[in-house]
Amino acid sequence: MTSEAGRWAIGLDLGGSAVKSGLVAADGSIAVFERTPIDRRAGADHLLAALLNQIERLRAAAAERGFEPVGIGVGSPGSIERATGRIHKSPNFAGWTGYPLRDELVRNTELPVYLANDVNAAALGELKFGAGEDYENFIMITLGTGVGGALVIGGRLYDGAEGFAGEIGHMMIDPEGPECPCGNRGCLEQLVGASAMVDRARALLAGSDADGPLAAVPEEELTPEIIGEAAADGDPVGRMVLAESGRWLGLAFITLINVLDPDCILVGGGIAQAGPPLFDAIRQTVGNHAMSGTARIVPIVLAALGTRAGTAGAGALALWPELSCES
Amino acid sequence: MTSEAGRWAIGLDLGGSAVKSGLVAADGSIAVFERTPIDRRAGADHLLAALLNQIERLRAAAAERGFEPVGIGVGSPGSIERATGRIHKSPNFAGWTGYPLRDELVRNTELPVYLANDVNAAALGELKFGAGEDYENFIMITLGTGVGGALVIGGRLYDGAEGFAGEIGHMMIDPEGPECPCGNRGCLEQLVGASAMVDRARALLAGSDADGPLAAVPEEELTPEIIGEAAADGDPVGRMVLAESGRWLGLAFITLINVLDPDCILVGGGIAQAGPPLFDAIRQTVGNHAMSGTARIVPIVLAALGTRAGTAGAGALALWPELSCES
Repeated sequence: MTSEAGRWAIGLDLGGSAVKSGLVAADGSIAVFERTPIDRRAGADHLLAALLNQIERLRAAAAERGFEPVGIGVGSPGSIERATGRIHKSPNFAGWTGYPLRDELVRNTELPVYLANDVNAAALGELKFGAGEDYENFIMITLGTGVGGALVIGGRLYDGAEGFAGEIGHMMIDPEGPECPCGNRGCLEQLVGASAMVDRARALLAGSDADGPLAAVPEEELTPEIIGEAAADGDPVGRMVLAESGRWLGLAFITLINVLDPDCILVGGGIAQAGPPLFDAIRQTVGNHAMSGTARIVPIVLAALGTRAGTAGAGALALWPELSCES
Repeated sequence: MTSEAGRWAIGLDLGGSAVKSGLVAADGSIAVFERTPIDRRAGADHLLAALLNQIERLRAAAAERGFEPVGIGVGSPGSIERATGRIHKSPNFAGWTGYPLRDELVRNTELPVYLANDVNAAALGELKFGAGEDYENFIMITLGTGVGGALVIGGRLYDGAEGFAGEIGHMMIDPEGPECPCGNRGCLEQLVGASAMVDRARALLAGSDADGPLAAVPEEELTPEIIGEAAADGDPVGRMVLAESGRWLGLAFITLINVLDPDCILVGGGIAQAGPPLFDAIRQTVGNHAMSGTARIVPIVLAALGTRAGTAGAGALALWPELSCES
């Protein structure tokens, strides 16, 4: 199986609570996809073992199908040091900062290993198999606990001079806004991240006699996903929260459009699933303020691959290493 | 003369009050540089004639030296339609929007013609011959009446999906800021452009018993350049105006650094000549707030070529067309 269609790679997407893994084919199909829980506080040995377990499982599955994967792609939280294949910084994963992930995986598997930041991997998945397939230049933003971003320029990942590009969550959006642990004030992540959404919902619920579905949720159980689902079902407080998030996102997108003039902006992550209550507010803000000079509306599109984007993109990285910023 | 060192091009930089032109060599030297006044309100025929006059003069100068220029590069205000070589939009130049500049120049000169937006041309000049020579990825910002920008990515100009990238003056910096003709609010250009600086100086001078050099300047004669010179000479009002501009620019640079992770940011244009009173404030703002994740300080550097950057870059465009975004 040497034709393009017959090439497969192992794709691993390391997330905050699980590793999602599968055999990724050159047509984007994923075989034996699996989500395996991990404990991000348990240290690097635990994380490496979890990844190696999945690799072993996938190699066995590949052997059953009569082929050898061309390599291993991994999307990991944190930034990746290009030259060394170490995790540069990943504050939320115990023992992960500085970990020589590429060397450890190569030593244990003797396969080619390719690493990318997790959002970059997801963007690569969308580029090859998803909502970015028709575009050369796009921005991807992921809305979850935090706000992640990635840039595709000229049909390849662009990760900047030292691998840190795409930190859309740390765009300065409001000079009077809340402080951010990064040292700045008014970062997008502080305005639309999970904490901001939950705080906004609590404030709205406390100050009103709202009787939508959200009012029935115990305060400590509120999550962005629950708020998003309620908004999609028409809950008025949920809609107000997403409209506010959409307005801040729209202001950030205006800057991104005016600086980067992308073909489109893809929005992924759990909160993006809320759909129209969020996207309508984004598009309204951008539409009201887009520079007339561009004479066009940049499409703002829901990412297509959902929770499989990272795995698909990690596989794509191993199938087409030239798409990364390293080559 | 076919060796790299012996190649020359005609470089033309069309500005608001003059066309700056010269013979640009592959080593960056400019022969017979000249600044010829134009009237930007006089229409496209006037502008074309001014450009053709300069081209004729430079071809004669080249013939005297015994060579033929390899082509003509032009930096022009407004965005350029890549496919057609028309000026897409240039609201401050009468008759310029929609003008088929490339076709007219080719028809009249029978030389290869390459067009770029004026700030893109200046960035190309800095990339090949100036402060950007050592960098693959940088952002250039020009501070004059307005605020212009250009992006160099992977050693080439990046102008986006449709040629409009680099509109740094229309980054949204303050959601409560002044309205901008572009339709947005709080654009960087509204906060640090010429009008903002002059208004700020007037307000400070009116509300104080300042007795620095600026206090002696008639109010209606205040310009950003005069304010910048006064600040460089230690005038307290001038310094306050530039410190405020530097703070806004620093906030914009934080976003640019976090999104694009550039090798450096080059600052050009007349106001940049003010030097330390401006750059200190920029660097202080960025230094206080840069993401700790990047673990480095992105250099913020005065552009090197001054008023010759556009001419040099226009020549570079004709010498190395592959540096543009079109190829």
